[in-house]
Amino acid sequence: MSATFVTTAVGQTALQAREDAAIADRIARSAASTAGAQLSTEAFPDWLEERRRAHRFRVDRIPFDALEGWSFEEGTGNLVHRSGRFFSVEGLHVTHEGGAFPQWHQPIIKQPEIGILGILVKEFDGVLHFLMQAKMEPGNRNLLQLSPTVQATRSNYTKVHEGADVKYIEYFVRPGKGRVLADVLQSEHGSWFLHKSNRNMIVEAVGDVPLHDDFCWLTLGQIGELLHRDNVVNMDSRTVLACAPFPDAATGALHSDTELLSWITAERSRHDVSTRRVPLDGLPGWQRSEDAIDREDGRYFRVVAVSVQAGSREVSGWTQPLFEPYGLGVAAFLTRWIDGALHVLVHARVEGGFLDTIELGPTVQYTPDNYSHLDGDGRPRYLDEVLAAGPDRIRYEALHSEEGGRFLNAESRYLLVEADEETAPIDPPAGYRWVTPGQLTSLVRHGHYVNVQARTLLACLHATGAGA
Amino acid sequence: MSATFVTTAVGQTALQAREDAAIADRIARSAASTAGAQLSTEAFPDWLEERRRAHRFRVDRIPFDALEGWSFEEGTGNLVHRSGRFFSVEGLHVTHEGGAFPQWHQPIIKQPEIGILGILVKEFDGVLHFLMQAKMEPGNRNLLQLSPTVQATRSNYTKVHEGADVKYIEYFVRPGKGRVLADVLQSEHGSWFLHKSNRNMIVEAVGDVPLHDDFCWLTLGQIGELLHRDNVVNMDSRTVLACAPFPDAATGALHSDTELLSWITAERSRHDVSTRRVPLDGLPGWQRSEDAIDREDGRYFRVVAVSVQAGSREVSGWTQPLFEPYGLGVAAFLTRWIDGALHVLVHARVEGGFLDTIELGPTVQYTPDNYSHLDGDGRPRYLDEVLAAGPDRIRYEALHSEEGGRFLNAESRYLLVEADEETAPIDPPAGYRWVTPGQLTSLVRHGHYVNVQARTLLACLHATGAGA
Repeated sequence: MSATFVTTAVGQTALQAREDAAIADRIARSAASTAGAQLSTEAFPDWLEERRRAHRFRVDRIPFDALEGWSFEEGTGNLVHRSGRFFSVEGLHVTHEGGAFPQWHQPIIKQPEIGILGILVKEFDGVLHFLMQAKMEPGNRNLLQLSPTVQATRSNYTKVHEGADVKYIEYFVRPGKGRVLADVLQSEHGSWFLHKSNRNMIVEAVGDVPLHDDFCWLTLGQIGELLHRDNVVNMDSRTVLACAPFPDAATGALHSDTELLSWITAERSRHDVSTRRVPLDGLPGWQRSEDAIDREDGRYFRVVAVSVQAGSREVSGWTQPLFEPYGLGVAAFLTRWIDGALHVLVHARVEGGFLDTIELGPTVQYTPDNYSHLDGDGRPRYLDEVLAAGPDRIRYEALHSEEGGRFLNAESRYLLVEADEETAPIDPPAGYRWVTPGQLTSLVRHGHYVNVQARTLLACLHATGAGA
Repeated sequence: MSATFVTTAVGQTALQAREDAAIADRIARSAASTAGAQLSTEAFPDWLEERRRAHRFRVDRIPFDALEGWSFEEGTGNLVHRSGRFFSVEGLHVTHEGGAFPQWHQPIIKQPEIGILGILVKEFDGVLHFLMQAKMEPGNRNLLQLSPTVQATRSNYTKVHEGADVKYIEYFVRPGKGRVLADVLQSEHGSWFLHKSNRNMIVEAVGDVPLHDDFCWLTLGQIGELLHRDNVVNMDSRTVLACAPFPDAATGALHSDTELLSWITAERSRHDVSTRRVPLDGLPGWQRSEDAIDREDGRYFRVVAVSVQAGSREVSGWTQPLFEPYGLGVAAFLTRWIDGALHVLVHARVEGGFLDTIELGPTVQYTPDNYSHLDGDGRPRYLDEVLAAGPDRIRYEALHSEEGGRFLNAESRYLLVEADEETAPIDPPAGYRWVTPGQLTSLVRHGHYVNVQARTLLACLHATGAGA
């Protein structure tokens, strides 16, 4: 069959290559560079401490009735803000036919607004540097951590709360100010958020960029060093960094991309998950007191309220609800070198708040305390292998905080643990698959494939220098 | 930073290339081949007519109270099946802040089960042939059309309705019977289905394949010729064909893939769409009579019931509801050759039933009758350009039926219409973008990017030989 189209003349339009071949090399060069052109890694702790001293922060627990602007809605008991914006805490009923937990009820955060998590990058001395911000969040361990250049809900940057402008936001919302290197909607904690996603962006600035207080330029190599320290690089930074177009260091993979996508499709199809929003009032298994909504058995998490005093946020003080998990989480990839190529064992996870049934999570993602009453086959798979791993097998380990704007002291121990055929065979059980970091990097160009904990681990993996 | 991982020995595992470089060429060879090894295109009409004569089909409209197994649910008035399976007709309330229609109510089909639409392929004389089925569907124009090898809801192949086995299903659900060439969950009509998606699969058979009655092997080139005829290739075939890994004929594109993904992300973020399931009873603007649920103004579609007598389906007779649209739809891509590369103008469309706000649709996707009362700025964009296009600009045109298992006489005129700078500038209005067929082929490897009408047009575009 011959083409029936004819070419029509078009002025001076020029086609582009579909992929920018140079960008992966530029990312790799920044990752290999541990000497920043602007702020040395050695000087970083002092800089962060100075930023801490420049502001006052104070977070206090308060009873629900001391919340300003927040109240339990008539009829549903949902915890809502009077503006109708920000977020609300509602009830969710999840059924998962054939799952380990066939049905449950839980409070969930509904935040339909899509925010922007954006890192501005720019070359200094021929090396890409990332503009990071020292930012206070009420739920973060240490309060002050390193956030993306911009971390803004739509309420933030459209000024629903009448605070100050969001610095550098123009690079992410106005064409012509920069060149996009990554831009994708990624899910966040499906166990605590209903269908939440944020726009993860990396934008290379065109022209000079003014440097404001609380901001610093760092190479990927420097950020990689900071990712080895506890509670320095916040969750929003980690998820954006995971979306950087790193080169694929491997020559292939155990499964081709088509096989991997087919397996993901099969996993999505085989799980029968259904969710229904229900009133927070009378949620089975949960109870509300003056200062907490929690479970009768004391597991998982509770909903609490805090008041925040701060000098470096867009407004100087506010109150808000937070989710406070019980216990320290564990998120780990088992890793293996297969035929000279590093692979990690992903788990197709069902979380009630995911938009599309499953996403690929870490091999292990649990809060061990929630399972301490179980033994034998009741134990979450691979959890004990990770907990028992000796230093000879642990390739990466650090504590990181989850989203400090919504979660209070939600800390997890993130690990990369080397496995062998005995603990983690090449042909894994249903729901698990060995994939390369390069394959994960391809998947994170799109939403709904890789969950936020696995994205943190992907960023950590790049920080070890082993992934690319 | 140096790699802290060490290589552990693994038996005889061999890595694969992430992409199979040969497959695109094999698809192109099949598309270029109009001489089938098994059934000639000239003999096809007689074969189809013979299949028609081998069965009896009869579809009659019936009142709702003559439906067997279906009833209006107490309390909600939703139209449901007593098994709780198949699908249900419920109400939906959609709000789209800032949209042309800021809010509306409508009946919608809820069908949470994921079905399989699968085409089995196999080489004859070195050319890939596709195993197609002559299949009756009650809502299809002509009733009998060419469907994929397998077109089965989970109820079908798990035998909820106690019919016969689904032929060839083992190639799509059992490992080792074939090699997957494409496997992706794709959405269907977001205006009529709530969050529906089906698994679109192309599997290359390992070993001999028995040929059953009602099935025939055709090359892509032959199917391309049939796609030029009205109402021969059904919707399920068209969407699966669109997922075939065609080669990219262009050397580049107006926008790089990263820019395109960024634009899609921005479009998803800027639309504020919220949907809520509501009872079908008392749905504002809609009324129920003995044999139809329709709008007071007679627009859009109505819900009706039919009885079906058939000899070639898994069961020999049944009754079911169908959605019956008013008027003939129009779905068209405006096309332009830009710098020697064919581009089509996609539209980021909001449809109430989409899982994720927007998907890329055709430039024009409307039922003109629904808009005949509007003029000037009220007219849907580009509709009049398509309706007025003369034969000198129409590069492809055919009538095709939508999903005949759920829709009655839902026919659309599918067109590819060549445009110029005056009618469709390179720099299009908000919500529109020029993309290459190669870029669409990359996007359809993943779900929720390209809607079902645009996938039909992608298949038609390949049928013209212009896309690859």
